[in-house]
Amino acid sequence: MTPFNRKHILSTKDLEVSEVEEILASAKSFKEVLSRDIKKVPPLRGKTVINLFFEDSTRTKTSFEIAGKTLSADVINISKGGSSVSKGETLLDTARTLEAMGPNILVVRSKQSGLPLRLSQALHCSVINAGDGFHEHPTQALLDLYTILEQRPTVAGLRVAIVGDIAHSRVARSNIYLLKKMGAELVLVGPGSLLPKEVEDFGVTATSDLLEGIRSADVIMVLRIQRERLGLPFFPSNQEYSHFFGIDREKLKLCKKDVLILHPGPVNRGIEISPDVADGSHSLILDQVANGVALRMALLYLLAK
Amino acid sequence: MTPFNRKHILSTKDLEVSEVEEILASAKSFKEVLSRDIKKVPPLRGKTVINLFFEDSTRTKTSFEIAGKTLSADVINISKGGSSVSKGETLLDTARTLEAMGPNILVVRSKQSGLPLRLSQALHCSVINAGDGFHEHPTQALLDLYTILEQRPTVAGLRVAIVGDIAHSRVARSNIYLLKKMGAELVLVGPGSLLPKEVEDFGVTATSDLLEGIRSADVIMVLRIQRERLGLPFFPSNQEYSHFFGIDREKLKLCKKDVLILHPGPVNRGIEISPDVADGSHSLILDQVANGVALRMALLYLLAK
Amino acid sequence: MTPFNRKHILSTKDLEVSEVEEILASAKSFKEVLSRDIKKVPPLRGKTVINLFFEDSTRTKTSFEIAGKTLSADVINISKGGSSVSKGETLLDTARTLEAMGPNILVVRSKQSGLPLRLSQALHCSVINAGDGFHEHPTQALLDLYTILEQRPTVAGLRVAIVGDIAHSRVARSNIYLLKKMGAELVLVGPGSLLPKEVEDFGVTATSDLLEGIRSADVIMVLRIQRERLGLPFFPSNQEYSHFFGIDREKLKLCKKDVLILHPGPVNRGIEISPDVADGSHSLILDQVANGVALRMALLYLLAK
Repeated sequence: MTPFNRKHILSTKDLEVSEVEEILASAKSFKEVLSRDIKKVPPLRGKTVINLFFEDSTRTKTSFEIAGKTLSADVINISKGGSSVSKGETLLDTARTLEAMGPNILVVRSKQSGLPLRLSQALHCSVINAGDGFHEHPTQALLDLYTILEQRPTVAGLRVAIVGDIAHSRVARSNIYLLKKMGAELVLVGPGSLLPKEVEDFGVTATSDLLEGIRSADVIMVLRIQRERLGLPFFPSNQEYSHFFGIDREKLKLCKKDVLILHPGPVNRGIEISPDVADGSHSLILDQVANGVALRMALLYLLAK
Repeated sequence: MTPFNRKHILSTKDLEVSEVEEILASAKSFKEVLSRDIKKVPPLRGKTVINLFFEDSTRTKTSFEIAGKTLSADVINISKGGSSVSKGETLLDTARTLEAMGPNILVVRSKQSGLPLRLSQALHCSVINAGDGFHEHPTQALLDLYTILEQRPTVAGLRVAIVGDIAHSRVARSNIYLLKKMGAELVLVGPGSLLPKEVEDFGVTATSDLLEGIRSADVIMVLRIQRERLGLPFFPSNQEYSHFFGIDREKLKLCKKDVLILHPGPVNRGIEISPDVADGSHSLILDQVANGVALRMALLYLLAK
Repeated sequence: MTPFNRKHILSTKDLEVSEVEEILASAKSFKEVLSRDIKKVPPLRGKTVINLFFEDSTRTKTSFEIAGKTLSADVINISKGGSSVSKGETLLDTARTLEAMGPNILVVRSKQSGLPLRLSQALHCSVINAGDGFHEHPTQALLDLYTILEQRPTVAGLRVAIVGDIAHSRVARSNIYLLKKMGAELVLVGPGSLLPKEVEDFGVTATSDLLEGIRSADVIMVLRIQRERLGLPFFPSNQEYSHFFGIDREKLKLCKKDVLILHPGPVNRGIEISPDVADGSHSLILDQVANGVALRMALLYLLAK
């Protein structure tokens, strides 16, 4: 295995399998650190991580903040509303200004697809994409993969159903690239209006029949329904969505007995997933959160080396 | 004295006298730390404290942040507006998600009475109630007690008047439980509409005659008038409230010469207290703030052990 | 040189030349620290810096935060909207409360001219003015001076043109005092409505003819146009301002070949400065940002000693 020498984490599409394996191995060692009584290791002492969030996020921002601090980094949180920095040029100036203050790693979340890539081209520091528009959310996909691999020896040959608003989901996109690369068989499930046009490019199958999609799945990834899209022509109501695509106990009975349920959070209980399934024995939702810290420690560590 | 082995700080109602004494003794030793040139001690190194504030608070949040950092903890601040997390179920999911990231202690403030208790039942980490609705604010009451005990050898037998909107005050409620437990004699003073219905349950006396209440008091705790309740039928106006219940120099002349004045802040100068009294020689308002850091260090330390 | 024993940094007007020189020398040594692989030094370990920003600022707040953390201080960020703390008395109470929590240094930004001075008189801790209303922004002027001195052996005899809304600019005011003190020759350039009335008191010259102002300048400081003043009678439109006072490639051709361009940021590209000039070889804009961290480290260090 060649040593990890990537400078940025922008997407899962461009990661090599060997890089993914090194990230996962590193995450595993950091998960052990997180189980200690004193959760603090020194590799990023004297390094600065800037969490630049142009879009709200408690979960991802806190995960990166804890990851950085556990590695002894100085972590700077910057949250900016979209209104005051609405022009792409200004976002770039903001990032350039912050970079001039000497951070080692810039973690960026933005509504604009492609902003992290653009910043990685303009800046000298490392850039991690913490979610950009409808494009990618690579750290989420990596932590999802890590979480599955805590339960299964490999994803090669596993059947993974991704259920929901695939077309607008950066989580789905990053998972599709990553899981296919690692050998999984993917089926995308959702209302026709929410399935992406590029299904064939992805080399995966798609269906609007939930049971067909999940019946033989080893893993079901349930996506969050973005409430801001409710009422649009995509689908008529919560109730109708929940009826046809929500994962509940009844539907779970038709699945494999050891099926794994993932959800990137935050959960809309009773819409895309029922409370008993979200909190049930198949659910890995809180494992995903816990593994997110270890996985992000791995990325910060590998980029800062 | 049995060693402190409580996991949560949710209220003063359920604290044992011996626990209170251990907290106060620990706070005293941390106050010495805070007087040093280098204010940093290592007991919480590698521990994470999350300040989860669903309600705005500069004072309490900053106090916990400084307390945690002085103990070498990593402190994560999370402020969430009430609107986006309006359902109790969602608050619980937010807390469960944060807990999955591995904090040792969750400090919670919320508009909802009882949320910290509910979280302590659902989570595995320690929970500190930093103020919940109209219910309790135990760390404020403990720092108030500590502040009185810097001036008096004991509170047993002291007469403490609490003045203001008792019915809606979590500060009053926590102080009533704590001071009674420690042997003080309490009198609640306020307009009849703002006195709690449970006066008899509390085992204290109440009056709407300010002078009767404060004349023989050793300590006067002035409560902040919540501006959002002005104009409601509770009382007609600032002026009227100030005239009948505001503590000013003239009324102070009728009190004991060495009476102690406390106020949890922030102060509405000229309403519940006049500027000369707030800044005068009887006032312990800034002592309360300073002692708050030491007291919260004690709690973080005792819970993290 | 007498040792630095100033307690506050409130303005450049009252700094001695020897103090300025000590600050610059200290900043130079900290710039070396910032170039290291591990950017962390211990002098402020166990000290607390509170960034109290009553007015939004990403740039200055982040610069102070990184400066403090690099020196091993605990840094507490507090941002307060103007509405909830609109009365001067309340700002003072907020500051007094924070001071009671034991910080060593309070960094204050406010809309109100003179607030830092008032706080320095009321509090016992050190106060740094991080920009107050139309009054002063001394740390910006000091970092501007440091940046010029990286390019020129001295500012004595240099001709510095400050271009823009001089009347409302705290950056201009602090630079005028500081650069004059250090021997520079100053010319203020802007529409007549935006030139200050005290030009004669400053002992500088002023003109509304941009070319006259910049033609022989060694340094051009371009000020940010405050969008909130657009449309007022000061000047009719962006376009007109840009035509007469914006610095672009054509106007730069009429300047000295080695002229230095500074701008305190954030830049309104295409209004007061064109993108090619902002990003061009004369521009020191990003050097200013980088030097800001070192300069603020110097101030925190000298005040905390």
